[in-house]
Amino acid sequence: MPKFTKSGPNGNARISPSHLNALPRLTQPPPVSPTSPGGQERYEVVIVGSGPAGILSSVLLARYGITSRLTVDDKHSQTELGQADGLQPRTLEILQSLDLAHEILTQGCQFHEVSFWNPGPENKGIVRTNRVPNISVPARFLHEVTIHQGRIERILNEDLERNGGRVERGWRVTGFEIDTPVEEEGFPVVVRMVKTGEEWKGEERVVRCKYLLGADGARSVVRQGMGLRLEGDHTDHVWGVMDTVVKTNFPDIRRKSAIHSAVGSVIVIPRERISPTQAITRIYCQMEGEVEKDPNLDNQIQSQTKRVLSPYSIEFGEVDWWATYQIGQRVSPRFSQPDSRGTLRVHIAGDACHTHSPKSGQGMNVSMMDAYNFSWKVAHVLNGLVPPDSDLLATYQHERLDIAQQLIGFDREFSKMFSGRIGGDHGLSHEQFQGVYVKMCGFTSGCGIEYREGMLVKGGREPLKERGNEDEYLAPGRRVVNAKVLRFCDGNPRDIQDEDLPSTARYRILTLLPTSFKHFPHKYAELLTILTSRIPLTFPPSIVEVPIFFPGERGSLEWTDFPPSVREKSEWLVFGDEFGEVYAAWGVDEEVGALAVVRPDGYVGAVAALSEVVVVENWLGKVLVKGQTLGGTMLSSKL
Amino acid sequence: MPKFTKSGPNGNARISPSHLNALPRLTQPPPVSPTSPGGQERYEVVIVGSGPAGILSSVLLARYGITSRLTVDDKHSQTELGQADGLQPRTLEILQSLDLAHEILTQGCQFHEVSFWNPGPENKGIVRTNRVPNISVPARFLHEVTIHQGRIERILNEDLERNGGRVERGWRVTGFEIDTPVEEEGFPVVVRMVKTGEEWKGEERVVRCKYLLGADGARSVVRQGMGLRLEGDHTDHVWGVMDTVVKTNFPDIRRKSAIHSAVGSVIVIPRERISPTQAITRIYCQMEGEVEKDPNLDNQIQSQTKRVLSPYSIEFGEVDWWATYQIGQRVSPRFSQPDSRGTLRVHIAGDACHTHSPKSGQGMNVSMMDAYNFSWKVAHVLNGLVPPDSDLLATYQHERLDIAQQLIGFDREFSKMFSGRIGGDHGLSHEQFQGVYVKMCGFTSGCGIEYREGMLVKGGREPLKERGNEDEYLAPGRRVVNAKVLRFCDGNPRDIQDEDLPSTARYRILTLLPTSFKHFPHKYAELLTILTSRIPLTFPPSIVEVPIFFPGERGSLEWTDFPPSVREKSEWLVFGDEFGEVYAAWGVDEEVGALAVVRPDGYVGAVAALSEVVVVENWLGKVLVKGQTLGGTMLSSKL
Repeated sequence: MPKFTKSGPNGNARISPSHLNALPRLTQPPPVSPTSPGGQERYEVVIVGSGPAGILSSVLLARYGITSRLTVDDKHSQTELGQADGLQPRTLEILQSLDLAHEILTQGCQFHEVSFWNPGPENKGIVRTNRVPNISVPARFLHEVTIHQGRIERILNEDLERNGGRVERGWRVTGFEIDTPVEEEGFPVVVRMVKTGEEWKGEERVVRCKYLLGADGARSVVRQGMGLRLEGDHTDHVWGVMDTVVKTNFPDIRRKSAIHSAVGSVIVIPRERISPTQAITRIYCQMEGEVEKDPNLDNQIQSQTKRVLSPYSIEFGEVDWWATYQIGQRVSPRFSQPDSRGTLRVHIAGDACHTHSPKSGQGMNVSMMDAYNFSWKVAHVLNGLVPPDSDLLATYQHERLDIAQQLIGFDREFSKMFSGRIGGDHGLSHEQFQGVYVKMCGFTSGCGIEYREGMLVKGGREPLKERGNEDEYLAPGRRVVNAKVLRFCDGNPRDIQDEDLPSTARYRILTLLPTSFKHFPHKYAELLTILTSRIPLTFPPSIVEVPIFFPGERGSLEWTDFPPSVREKSEWLVFGDEFGEVYAAWGVDEEVGALAVVRPDGYVGAVAALSEVVVVENWLGKVLVKGQTLGGTMLSSKL
Repeated sequence: MPKFTKSGPNGNARISPSHLNALPRLTQPPPVSPTSPGGQERYEVVIVGSGPAGILSSVLLARYGITSRLTVDDKHSQTELGQADGLQPRTLEILQSLDLAHEILTQGCQFHEVSFWNPGPENKGIVRTNRVPNISVPARFLHEVTIHQGRIERILNEDLERNGGRVERGWRVTGFEIDTPVEEEGFPVVVRMVKTGEEWKGEERVVRCKYLLGADGARSVVRQGMGLRLEGDHTDHVWGVMDTVVKTNFPDIRRKSAIHSAVGSVIVIPRERISPTQAITRIYCQMEGEVEKDPNLDNQIQSQTKRVLSPYSIEFGEVDWWATYQIGQRVSPRFSQPDSRGTLRVHIAGDACHTHSPKSGQGMNVSMMDAYNFSWKVAHVLNGLVPPDSDLLATYQHERLDIAQQLIGFDREFSKMFSGRIGGDHGLSHEQFQGVYVKMCGFTSGCGIEYREGMLVKGGREPLKERGNEDEYLAPGRRVVNAKVLRFCDGNPRDIQDEDLPSTARYRILTLLPTSFKHFPHKYAELLTILTSRIPLTFPPSIVEVPIFFPGERGSLEWTDFPPSVREKSEWLVFGDEFGEVYAAWGVDEEVGALAVVRPDGYVGAVAALSEVVVVENWLGKVLVKGQTLGGTMLSSKL
């Protein structure tokens, strides 16, 4: 027991979770009153829809400190049944970098393996022809996770509320106009909505905003308001999907299984447990013949599944959800729309941009990646962090439309392959099918995504690739792959990708020192001072972070081997490659070192030699405004 | 987009986190109305205090399904400043097995290393003499975590609320009586309390309960009501402690550091970050001379720290909290008190049982371990899961008083060692000090704790120890150490200790099959059927789980190699030792196999050969009642 004790004033601040690390703001803060002189509500951003793309955008903007924000959804509650259920490794990486992956990882269903089943001898029954790792590319998580979409939305909604936001439900957007006659203080977009639900019929609401994001699904009103439609086609293949608890002696019911039998195809997707002894199973099943509006379609899904799985038995419990769909791939020709001055004011994301088959578990993931790509860009623009002549928001369509088109192309091939007969006289052999499945993993996992050359991806340079695994190299346009490092200040092992490059919308200059640093540290003092002091001071405060790496073990290295600004500015960002992972994975020659600028979304913007600091500085100068203040009050940046 | 879609009734149930896995109940459910015929409130358990021991007990009882529960605390808010801050590896294991460790692990300060500093040449200044891993015993987490005690309490309070409970604040317990004249339906303990705070002065409340837990701190009213006082002594050593943000060039400020200089001793305890660029540091500092009530004691702590750290500089920021204390070690002679029939009705836990110095970071940990040991026992008794003649609650004092006495003895030695001069002509050498520090890690980490032989720890048998690390063997009285395994049903890697032996108050029969199982699986069909079917059916439903392990890789093993009851009862509990960790760590010969019964708190109760199923059955028969129902309504067990 203490004899005497005394306390300071910081009590409550110390017991809450730390999340928020708001961006600096150089522009005028948004008006405190949300009402315009004309009597209309005003927000910097209006987000339509709170499915995965909409709610993730809201969460990100709240965390970045964009407080003038409205998210509306026409539904009165969040998704409760069915829909998407799969999170790919890259999506998990992003959620982890937001510290939002825990419940998903621990309570969702991880699948590490996929098994392939094909017709048995003489086309009778089915036999397992192989069982392979589900993810064959380097990733922080070597598995997918399936979990109810409503649960993912609930987790994101809770985070939004923790950070001072909420979704306003029951408002259906009916249309918008840009360049309204009176551009009230830079809020040129007018959004019209009505209250949904019987008792509220007819109530109207008109709000103004600077930017509008339509995350309002495949029938997007925002997209229609942009005069756009999804373009593409659909096939004759009809599939059924069903979420239920099954009782079966099929051995791989807890494993992702692609089953081709002589009488059709089934995909088994294991799902989360709902009690200590029960788990949901999702069954995708190719339907035979014409599928018309038939109240017994669920029976048809079940009987077809039974036929395909024979000689194994399967019994279905209470059905949570089922649906049938005709496979089609369609994409919007544009994602963004400018006002008359060329400023891109209206954007769409998620299903509003692209629809495709659900079987490769892409929909929710690509939608969330749209949101992740868009949100930091609009936040940087709103906070005045970009140079006046920059066109940062144009990179959203530039990068994501390209990915959507790849997705559509991929899905067309994948669906055709899956719906066709495997192992017969025509079409792919078992081996070819499995080979294609593995090869596509870079795309389906989200980990192999590469953004095109442009303002945010410096071209004209080969990736760093001295050694290691080609998929992991630091290359402009690719995400930074995780590696385990040892933090210098405290000897803690760290997962660099999410623990030290978290999704706080900052740029990072990865500084990989060469081996000679350890012998002649003071030769690098000037370089390190420029990197940790001069460059960050050129740009708005806290927007540029400088993680520093050295090869091998720390040995007798001390803080005095670094110039003072390193400990002052990057105390928690100096790392040793104690486990031999970083230089190897990132393809950096330990004798030479390297620099790489990482964008706020974790993708490499530019790589350079250690002698080319000017390349880094110039590249940053194109994406970030110079100067520490620029009128307006600075938002303090707190954890 | 689906063409047709249809939903079942389970929507909302699917989007909430899954936590609760309540115990089965064979006794009559508690009265729905909390009021007795005599007009008094009635609860099965009353917990006094909501510090770490009290709140953890409340959380555990809520999760086990004990709904008739009252937790009171005299304070109007939770801990806001200072106090304890360290969580040891065993405590982290337990929190992880409750899925409550995430925020603590990610936002607390992990320390993996400890450095030792001693006087420099000619006794001038200080030099680092060594830097070693902080934890030197096998553990799931090879580090301590420091984080504000109020934050740990907040996390536990939130979990209590998620599971339908809350702490009633502002009630001070003034006394209790056992064996009150009218034993109203088995609620023989009467607890008296008054409302605290000016405006409520004088308001009285009297409640009845079956069991009372005093987790009300070192000045425990409950302990005093039992007629007990803490017994022991105190020394003349006075230490100061301070939580603040410092600015220093001392290189190990982010590392746990034990500093002995010629002018005194300081311990540096790094703490959690409170912003991207700031972290709290806790300083323990041995005070010079007499320490009286002095408003400038904080200055004295700071100036003494400066002297010890010289030639390094240190500046102190705003102080969150400081205190001074005189080192003493005291323990209560008993932890439990019976009614006149011998039923143990009143118990104490945490600081109410033991006080000691804070320097080895034990207090909060030992207190939470008291709660963890007590809670499942009282729940089993309340739910009628124990045989009528069992004295399960007596094992609480039997096991925890022993540990408290060890703690006191350890702390006496440790404090003496720390307060004494190191490296001088008298006392320990640097090497001896460091040697003792490392040797004590089994105790301080909590991982080396061994419970005494008794009803819950079968004696007369050597631990299994064919090979591997002696600290990890399965031995009665020790906790089961973690190992990575591959789950058979889905090929997922699992951390067995917390993912598959979670803290749900179940007994587990660990069944380790020998290598020959893989060659002649059907030879083990009868054994496996007895273990997974006959034995669990002997006892109340769901209370005995049977995890099954086989050596090495799964190879061509299929479900058909197991008798049907294995897949029916233990589908998610069959594991392969794919990574070579389990048999090696647990000291089990792969050629022979073994059985081990694990208690609800993760400690081994008994070990046996595979041929000794009867030993397991008999041991369980002493701690669990037989039969699946025993009057009363069964509580359904849900995840």
